[in-house]
Amino acid sequence: MAPYLTEWRDRYQGKAPLILKPGSTDEVAEILQYANEKCIAIVPQGGNTGLVGAQIPDESGNQIVVSLQRMNHVRDVDLASNTMTVDAGLTLATAQQVAESAGKLFPLSLASEGSCQIGGVLATNAGGVAVLTYGNARELALGLEVVLADGRVWHGLKRLRKDNTGYDLKDLFIGSEGTLGIITAAVLRLFPRPMERVTCMAGLNDLAQAPDFFTRVHEASGAMLTAFEVLPRLGLEFVVKHAEKTRDPFPNTHPWYVLFELTSPRVGEEPRQLAETLLAKAIEQEEVADAVIAASLQQSQDLWRLRELMSEVQKFEGGSIKHDVSVPVAKVPEFIARANQLVELMIPGARPVPFGHLGDGNIHYNVSQPVEMDKAVFLSNWEALNAAVHEIVLDLDGSISAEHGIGRMKADLLPHAKGELAVELMRKIKASFDPNGILNPGKVLR
Amino acid sequence: MAPYLTEWRDRYQGKAPLILKPGSTDEVAEILQYANEKCIAIVPQGGNTGLVGAQIPDESGNQIVVSLQRMNHVRDVDLASNTMTVDAGLTLATAQQVAESAGKLFPLSLASEGSCQIGGVLATNAGGVAVLTYGNARELALGLEVVLADGRVWHGLKRLRKDNTGYDLKDLFIGSEGTLGIITAAVLRLFPRPMERVTCMAGLNDLAQAPDFFTRVHEASGAMLTAFEVLPRLGLEFVVKHAEKTRDPFPNTHPWYVLFELTSPRVGEEPRQLAETLLAKAIEQEEVADAVIAASLQQSQDLWRLRELMSEVQKFEGGSIKHDVSVPVAKVPEFIARANQLVELMIPGARPVPFGHLGDGNIHYNVSQPVEMDKAVFLSNWEALNAAVHEIVLDLDGSISAEHGIGRMKADLLPHAKGELAVELMRKIKASFDPNGILNPGKVLR
Repeated sequence: MAPYLTEWRDRYQGKAPLILKPGSTDEVAEILQYANEKCIAIVPQGGNTGLVGAQIPDESGNQIVVSLQRMNHVRDVDLASNTMTVDAGLTLATAQQVAESAGKLFPLSLASEGSCQIGGVLATNAGGVAVLTYGNARELALGLEVVLADGRVWHGLKRLRKDNTGYDLKDLFIGSEGTLGIITAAVLRLFPRPMERVTCMAGLNDLAQAPDFFTRVHEASGAMLTAFEVLPRLGLEFVVKHAEKTRDPFPNTHPWYVLFELTSPRVGEEPRQLAETLLAKAIEQEEVADAVIAASLQQSQDLWRLRELMSEVQKFEGGSIKHDVSVPVAKVPEFIARANQLVELMIPGARPVPFGHLGDGNIHYNVSQPVEMDKAVFLSNWEALNAAVHEIVLDLDGSISAEHGIGRMKADLLPHAKGELAVELMRKIKASFDPNGILNPGKVLR
Repeated sequence: MAPYLTEWRDRYQGKAPLILKPGSTDEVAEILQYANEKCIAIVPQGGNTGLVGAQIPDESGNQIVVSLQRMNHVRDVDLASNTMTVDAGLTLATAQQVAESAGKLFPLSLASEGSCQIGGVLATNAGGVAVLTYGNARELALGLEVVLADGRVWHGLKRLRKDNTGYDLKDLFIGSEGTLGIITAAVLRLFPRPMERVTCMAGLNDLAQAPDFFTRVHEASGAMLTAFEVLPRLGLEFVVKHAEKTRDPFPNTHPWYVLFELTSPRVGEEPRQLAETLLAKAIEQEEVADAVIAASLQQSQDLWRLRELMSEVQKFEGGSIKHDVSVPVAKVPEFIARANQLVELMIPGARPVPFGHLGDGNIHYNVSQPVEMDKAVFLSNWEALNAAVHEIVLDLDGSISAEHGIGRMKADLLPHAKGELAVELMRKIKASFDPNGILNPGKVLR
C-alpha cells in the first residue's frame, strides 16, 4: 500500500485501511454509494503526482484511497469532431500517444506526464508549457462522466464545442480536486498535429524587456507561438553545473533568458523564417542581447532540457522554498523585483531562481538557500516566506496557486487569497453536492 | 418602457412596474439587496437581443427589469496580458472596436453585435462564427465581477490564464442567464489582430463529404481556420431571390456549399496560397465540385453576406420553424438526413434550410413552410416538430440548445434533454446562490 500513501517528494504521508482499485464506472459508483451510506471518507487518486497533497489520505487511518489506475481504456477517437473519449486512469503520456497515432495532437504537456492520469489532470485543472495557445486542462475537455458522492453517475460525455443547456457542471468538477465527485471518463479535444517546430532562446539584459518582447513575438506569430518561458541566469548555471550533457548555448552571460517555440501544422520554412526575422529585429532594437535558433531536433531538445531540468537541479544547491504563483504578464518584472527584495530582507544571501511560463504570467518563484546556511534552518522560513510573497502576488492581482491547486497545502490560505465570499459560495456548492462530506475531506476547503 | 418589455421578434412580451438603470456596481448591489429583502423578482437585461426570452419579464407585472446599459465603460486595456476589463453594458461592437484601437482582436462575432452587451453575451455564453478557433464567450473571459442575489459583490476580475484556487465560480455564472447573479464587469481576452483574411466558398455534391473536407482543411491550416460554415442550395436561392446586391458566385448549382475563412497575423500570401492548394486538391479528388476565393475585401464581404442573410430572408418565404442544435461534427450529415426525412413525414412539402457552423457541429435547423400552406397552420406544428427533431439530436449525443440558451423557451425541455440528475444539481446550486429565488425566476429552471 505504501506507494499510495505518500507522494514522491515525501512531503505528505497518510494512512488508509485499504486501497480500492475499481475497474469500471459502475464499481466506482458502488464504492461511493456504500461510503456515502456509512459516512466513510474517500480520497480519489490518479497517478499520485500532485504537488499539494490532494491525493494523499490524512493520518487518521479512516480514509479509503480509490485509485482509478485500472480504468485506462480509450473509449472512442472521433477525427471529424476532433475528440477522443478516455477513461480517467489513462496516463497523460498514453493519451498523447493515442492522439498522435490518430494523426492529431493532444497538447497538454507536463513534467509528470508519464505518470499523471487524465482524471487527476482534470481534477486539478493542470497547466504546463502549452497553455499559451491551447489552454489548461479545463479548456481541453468537452465533456465528463462523474460519479457523485451518493454513487449516482452524471453522464456528461458530450463531444460538442457548443452546448448552452444550463449551468456549466463540467467546469465545476474540473479543478475541484475530487471534492465534488470522481471523474471516471472525459471527452478530450484534439488539434492538428504540428509538422514544423522551431525552438529559440534569447538572452536579455533586463527582465523588464520581456513582456514587450513577448507581446511583439505573440502579435507576429499568433497561435504559432505555443510556448514562451523565462529563465534566470542562476537557474541556467545550476542546470549546467549539475545536469549531464547540458551547456550554456551563448558565448556571453545574460541576466535573463526567454525560451520560445513556434509550430505550424504545415511543412515549410515559415516558422523558422519568422523566428529569424523577429530575433534579428529584436537584436537590432536592443530588446534582445543575443539569440539562438535550434538547427535540429537534437538542439531543440537540448534547449528544452535547460528549462525542464530547472526545478530538479535546485535540490543540489540545498533547500529550496517554492511558490507556484501567477500575476498579469505585464507585472511579472515588478513581481520578481519586489519578491527578490523581500527575500534579501528576510533571508540575506538566499538565492531566488524565478522561472516559468512568462506568456501566462505563471512564475515558479523558487528560492535556493544561502550557500553556507543549514538546510533545516533555511526551510524553517518556508511558511513565513510564502506568506510574504503571497502578499505581493495578491497586491498585483495574482493567484497564489497558478497550476498546482489548493489540496492540503494551501487550504488554510484560501479564504484570505480568494476572499471570504468566494469561499462561502464554494462551501455552499460542496454542502449541496456532498452533504455527508465523504469526498476528499480536508482538501481545498477546511 | 415598451422596448424593455418585448423582444425584437415579438415572441416574448412581459410587464414590469419599472425599469431600473443602475450606473454602477454599487447601485446594482443596492437594488439586489433591497429586492432580496423584499423578495422582489429581478430580470437582468443587456441589449435585449436574446432569442429564448431570458431577458423579458413575465406577465405578472411583478418583476423588475434591471438594464445594465448605462454601465458601459472600459476600465482597463492591458496589452502584455492580452486583456481588457469592461463594464457589462458595453456593446459587443464597441468592445471589438476598443480592441482594434489597441491593435488587438476581440474575436467574438455575432449577428446582434451592434446591440448585444458584454454582460448578456457572458450570461448566455454566446457563440457565433469564430468559435472554431477562439471559443465561446466562456473561453474569452478570464474574470468577472458579479453582484449576488443578496447584494454582495464577488470581485473576480482576475486577468490570469492560470489560477487554480478552488472551484470555478466564473464559469458557473457564465451561461447561467442571470439566474445566479448579475455580471457587472468582465476581463476579456485579446488576440493578435489578423493582417490577412481569405474567404473561400466551395460547392459540394454531397453533404456527406463536408466533415472529411473540414478535417482536411483544419489539419492543414490549424488555428488559421477561423470559420467553417455550411449552407444549403435552397438557402442560397432564398438569399439571392430576396436580398439586394447578392448573387450566386458559381456558374452551376450545387446542393451544398461551405464557406470558410483563413486568417493570419502576418502580412503575406500564405493564407491565399494555402487556400488555393487545398481547393485545387479537393477539386482534383472530387471532394469539392467547384470553388471561389474572394479576390478583394468586397468579394469577401459579398460571400459572407450570403451566410449572414440566410436567417433573415427566410421570413419572405412564409413561416419558419427553427432549431438551434449541435451534434458531433461527424454526425452532421446523418442528423440533417434524418431530420429532413422526419419533416417530410410530418409536414409534406415543408422546405428544410439547415445551415450553420459545421466546424462546431452547430446547425440552425430551420424549416420553411410548404409554398401553398397557411402560415399559422404551419407554425402550429412548432412544438411537435421541435420535439421530434430534438429526439434525433439527443439520439446523436447532441445539444438542444447549442448557442442561444434555455431561457423561457426551453426550460420545460431541460430535464429530458439534460437528464434529471443534472437538473437536480442545477437546482441545488440555484437554491444555495439565490435562496429567495429573486434572480430571473422561471428562466432556465422551472
